[in-house]
Amino acid sequence: MRELKIIKIGGNLLDDPVQLTSALTSFARLRGPKLLVHGGGKKSSELSKKMGITPQMVDGRRITDRQTLEIVVMVYAGWLNKSVVSELQALGCQAIGLSGADGNAIRATKREAGTIDFGFAGDIQTINVPFLETLLHNGLTPVCCAITHDGRGQLLNTNADTIATELAGALSEKFRVTLQFIFEKNGVLVQPQDDASFLSSLSKKEYQALKEQGIVTGGMIPKLDNAFLAKKANVHQVFIGGPSGIDETATFKGTEICD
Amino acid sequence: MRELKIIKIGGNLLDDPVQLTSALTSFARLRGPKLLVHGGGKKSSELSKKMGITPQMVDGRRITDRQTLEIVVMVYAGWLNKSVVSELQALGCQAIGLSGADGNAIRATKREAGTIDFGFAGDIQTINVPFLETLLHNGLTPVCCAITHDGRGQLLNTNADTIATELAGALSEKFRVTLQFIFEKNGVLVQPQDDASFLSSLSKKEYQALKEQGIVTGGMIPKLDNAFLAKKANVHQVFIGGPSGIDETATFKGTEICD
Repeated sequence: MRELKIIKIGGNLLDDPVQLTSALTSFARLRGPKLLVHGGGKKSSELSKKMGITPQMVDGRRITDRQTLEIVVMVYAGWLNKSVVSELQALGCQAIGLSGADGNAIRATKREAGTIDFGFAGDIQTINVPFLETLLHNGLTPVCCAITHDGRGQLLNTNADTIATELAGALSEKFRVTLQFIFEKNGVLVQPQDDASFLSSLSKKEYQALKEQGIVTGGMIPKLDNAFLAKKANVHQVFIGGPSGIDETATFKGTEICD
Repeated sequence: MRELKIIKIGGNLLDDPVQLTSALTSFARLRGPKLLVHGGGKKSSELSKKMGITPQMVDGRRITDRQTLEIVVMVYAGWLNKSVVSELQALGCQAIGLSGADGNAIRATKREAGTIDFGFAGDIQTINVPFLETLLHNGLTPVCCAITHDGRGQLLNTNADTIATELAGALSEKFRVTLQFIFEKNGVLVQPQDDASFLSSLSKKEYQALKEQGIVTGGMIPKLDNAFLAKKANVHQVFIGGPSGIDETATFKGTEICD
């Protein structure tokens, strides 16, 4: 089975041009089939503010009304995606930017309103594996943003970690996938203030214990839940770590997620 | 040689959802390899205004400063491109949205400042024919917006008519290309007020005469210059006409441009 590297980069990296260039340089150097997923960063909130719209967040998730949908499509699929693609092209990587609508790559359904109405938020239904395989087999590197569609003409906003997880799971049918969630720490920390206290691996049981002890909290929980979902979906290796782990020669890619 | 249909749709169509859906429905029904190029429409000017930036135009061309570049990338490659792609997907067309950076599809150089400094305006240098062929041969329909890149990480703004012309010329090496510029009239009119006075064909000589007589003026001149450039670049057939001409069964596709 052919290897495939999937790297997910998040908001903080995208907001820092120097760090972003460094991460993209490492990514461009990776050999073999690879795929990049990127999140949003601060730009969409900034643009909302400029346009007089107050971003609404519930539990760290954006409420996507019609105006906000326009903004996230413009920022994620427009400015951020094309900036990353053009920078990767300059680094010799044959990148191609995708939303979930492009090539029907990621089809989702609009989340039904419960106690919270998330608006135009999409829950992933299907990944178009043959389409992504075609691109990868032709030496192209997909760069996926956090926008999906419902197949009936509606664009939707989907969490980038979820996109990375679902892509990795679906592509594991055809590839031996390594998935790396890149964030601002070196890995999962046992002492949240000490960046050197990262774990080399984390099992589901250990994760439960860390949650119960209040060591793993807040935004780390959905991130780790996603990582365990990927592992459950037969992704060969899943890591959570810092940008230095993108490098081909890195001996440490971050905390490895174990069954 | 295999046939390829290239359709360019412009601003007025993009600003009218009913007309746009009708044009995309006809486009989605076209059989065989096809490619769509779309312009900008009013949305980028509207967004500029909301953000307090006054769009600057010289001779119908936008001056692209850094802020304006961000806006056109967000609107053209983001909102418009993804809206068109998701609508085509809903119509059963396996569309994939592209800027010139994606797959290094269209490489341009920043126009040097002369008497007018156009800012981040790109003049096309190379079209990546093998990349576009790969997409077309895999049953994908490229949807190209008016954004290019310089291969060194800089995105650029390029006129959509020019993009359609250059794509048609370059792809004529490999395909028997029909290029249709779709606009609000049925074709080139000899009486500008009378929509029924369209010409079935127009030669270079006739075009010169119409210009000298002041019948062809303003925005029609760059449009027709582009059409004649395409014809010169060995594009099999070039038409300028209305949206009804997109239809497969249309007997009249617009004014045919002749040598």
